[in-house]
Amino acid sequence: MKTNFTYFMPTEIIFGPGTLGKLATVKLPGKKALLVIGSGNSMRRHGYLDRVVNYLKQNGVDYVVYDKILPNPIAEHVAEGAKVAKDNGCDFVIGLGGGSTIDSSKAIAVMAKNPGDYWDYVSGGSGKGMEVKNGALPIVAIPTTAGTGTESDPWAVVTKTETNEKIGFGCKYTYPTLSIVDPELMVSIPPKFTAYQGMDAFFHSVEGYLATVNQPGSDVLALQSISLITENLPKAVADGNNMEARTALAWASTAAGIVESLSSCISHHSLEHALSAYHPEIPHGAGLIMLSVSYFSFMASKAPERFVDIAKAMGEEIVGNTVEEQAMCFINGLKKLIRNIGMEDLSLSSFGVTEDEATKLAKNAMDTMGGLFNVDPYKLSLDEVVSIYKNCF
Amino acid sequence: MKTNFTYFMPTEIIFGPGTLGKLATVKLPGKKALLVIGSGNSMRRHGYLDRVVNYLKQNGVDYVVYDKILPNPIAEHVAEGAKVAKDNGCDFVIGLGGGSTIDSSKAIAVMAKNPGDYWDYVSGGSGKGMEVKNGALPIVAIPTTAGTGTESDPWAVVTKTETNEKIGFGCKYTYPTLSIVDPELMVSIPPKFTAYQGMDAFFHSVEGYLATVNQPGSDVLALQSISLITENLPKAVADGNNMEARTALAWASTAAGIVESLSSCISHHSLEHALSAYHPEIPHGAGLIMLSVSYFSFMASKAPERFVDIAKAMGEEIVGNTVEEQAMCFINGLKKLIRNIGMEDLSLSSFGVTEDEATKLAKNAMDTMGGLFNVDPYKLSLDEVVSIYKNCF
Ligand SMILES: [Fe+2]
Ligand SMILES: [Fe+2]
Repeated sequence: MKTNFTYFMPTEIIFGPGTLGKLATVKLPGKKALLVIGSGNSMRRHGYLDRVVNYLKQNGVDYVVYDKILPNPIAEHVAEGAKVAKDNGCDFVIGLGGGSTIDSSKAIAVMAKNPGDYWDYVSGGSGKGMEVKNGALPIVAIPTTAGTGTESDPWAVVTKTETNEKIGFGCKYTYPTLSIVDPELMVSIPPKFTAYQGMDAFFHSVEGYLATVNQPGSDVLALQSISLITENLPKAVADGNNMEARTALAWASTAAGIVESLSSCISHHSLEHALSAYHPEIPHGAGLIMLSVSYFSFMASKAPERFVDIAKAMGEEIVGNTVEEQAMCFINGLKKLIRNIGMEDLSLSSFGVTEDEATKLAKNAMDTMGGLFNVDPYKLSLDEVVSIYKNCF
Repeated sequence: MKTNFTYFMPTEIIFGPGTLGKLATVKLPGKKALLVIGSGNSMRRHGYLDRVVNYLKQNGVDYVVYDKILPNPIAEHVAEGAKVAKDNGCDFVIGLGGGSTIDSSKAIAVMAKNPGDYWDYVSGGSGKGMEVKNGALPIVAIPTTAGTGTESDPWAVVTKTETNEKIGFGCKYTYPTLSIVDPELMVSIPPKFTAYQGMDAFFHSVEGYLATVNQPGSDVLALQSISLITENLPKAVADGNNMEARTALAWASTAAGIVESLSSCISHHSLEHALSAYHPEIPHGAGLIMLSVSYFSFMASKAPERFVDIAKAMGEEIVGNTVEEQAMCFINGLKKLIRNIGMEDLSLSSFGVTEDEATKLAKNAMDTMGGLFNVDPYKLSLDEVVSIYKNCF
């Protein structure tokens, strides 16, 4: 058991099917919200925006909609959203939608109260890592996907387009004050994205369990969410209306977010951010899946110990005489899960990625998200990262 | 898996051997502390008070010591402590010591900002259940025992002496803002109290697992802490300097506190509060131990399902064909644990409790802490509570 650590995850999470309605009565952290949604039409089409707006009215809370967030959110919209919040006197921010929207709402909440440019505060890459002196507007997260865990962590992943930097940033002010996690909002996610997002949550828990900054509280939540995803993701991919599976996945994603708050992702996420920074058409979860067998096979060969617990949590029988052999049971479980969600044919080539990009990607990963390499259970060299990329082909 | 619940535990917890020193540098929630300690001499004798005072000075924080808290804390000292805080312009409260001290510091933090009498805000018994309108001073908890979980829950247990009411009260303002959990401060606890306090934490987790308001996050923390206590409490009782065991128990206690925040204790705690309200010389943990075999044997016969997981977490082999039989494996594990910590000879009679008090105790339990009966896995009648008490003799 890890014996020195800090435990902190201050978000209040109202969880369960039907809980969106509580927005009408719950105490909200302000009187006028900047309501942030994506640039697509889905929040309107599914009626989620109307429902939220009506609940806010019942709650006596005013709002302004900002609806420009892209699937890979960019720093320009953070600046613009913050200006809209300031111009309209918004005193809190609501993020309604997927990870991109909620992440952007966190970044907007920071920039609505702090001067300068968002990248002044980002750590890593060309970010200046300045202190967030003035705090942030309170954030309410209403996720409509199960994957990023942004509802229960401080992280906001935003891309600076000029420099191809896709970096996760967060601080104590960017935990949502309140998150309403209603699995009923997730039934509209098509099978492919259900799979991508579910695997994103899966890897948050796997990585949080492996990271050297693991702690006992994150350990048990990570293993719980790994079990839930292994069992329920194939069911939700097969039948998006399976509310029991959707609910289990929603909690697994939120639990994995807590894991990211208490522990950390490892460099698997850095490798993926580099990939989708250069190839923004690759969904984050798809990128993680395509890198995962190569990445974790190598990592398990170097730091096998904790992989055995993960394999057990996946329900894998542990075979092998050495811990290295036993660790490979996780790779078997991982391949099986990827098959069970119909993702065994995903390939980097089909997204137009070529093997000769490996060095460029490895350098980007280590430059922009180098911090995660410091919590890896084994310290990777540039050459090893290059070969992990190459082994994906 | 429970599908509707609220997750909330906002305390920042700095955990680990040697972490008390962080008090010198961590950002504290105020400039002048009311430093609350017990009326005994132990915080001075062990040098803990001197260390805390020095760290506060290094941190540039002023303080006033309030040192009257009794082992079973009383409402009079809450009022007095709050007056001292107000008279001296304290802007936060530090509780240093066992559960009684930290619980009192929470109650003082409320009364330093709200009018009237503490019992106006308490729910249950003759408490008026008024809303805590003005919030509370920020609370910093520095536990020197592993048991109550008060470092990671909102609960304050205080006795109103005139009416023999010992009631746990808490609200969103009574979570500590910061807790520093340093297992090195716990080596000075003698074996008997190590055992009592460890079993208090054990029962918080057992009860939180059984309560109908359990949730997936509390479930995994409860089972983890049950495993840790089963393994480490006998070791720490045998050798108080075993830092590995002390550290495991400190986390188990803190995790059990999180369980109490997310889920709830059940009526086992109500029965104990009635007992020690009438017999204040009975330590809380001792009372719980003496009631436990009778209480849980009855509860397991009525609502066996969740007991099987607890027995497994204790490392018990699950035998029996029916779930009722399997549930009794927990009772075997419980008896074994009580033996392993040298508490098999504890008896109510030796504390002067007589069987004919059973009805009085049962009524007090159901009156003052009736709320916990509502989250029991089986709804107890007054007669059943009386017979649970009688079966302890
Ligand atoms: Fe991710
Ligand atoms: Fe207790």
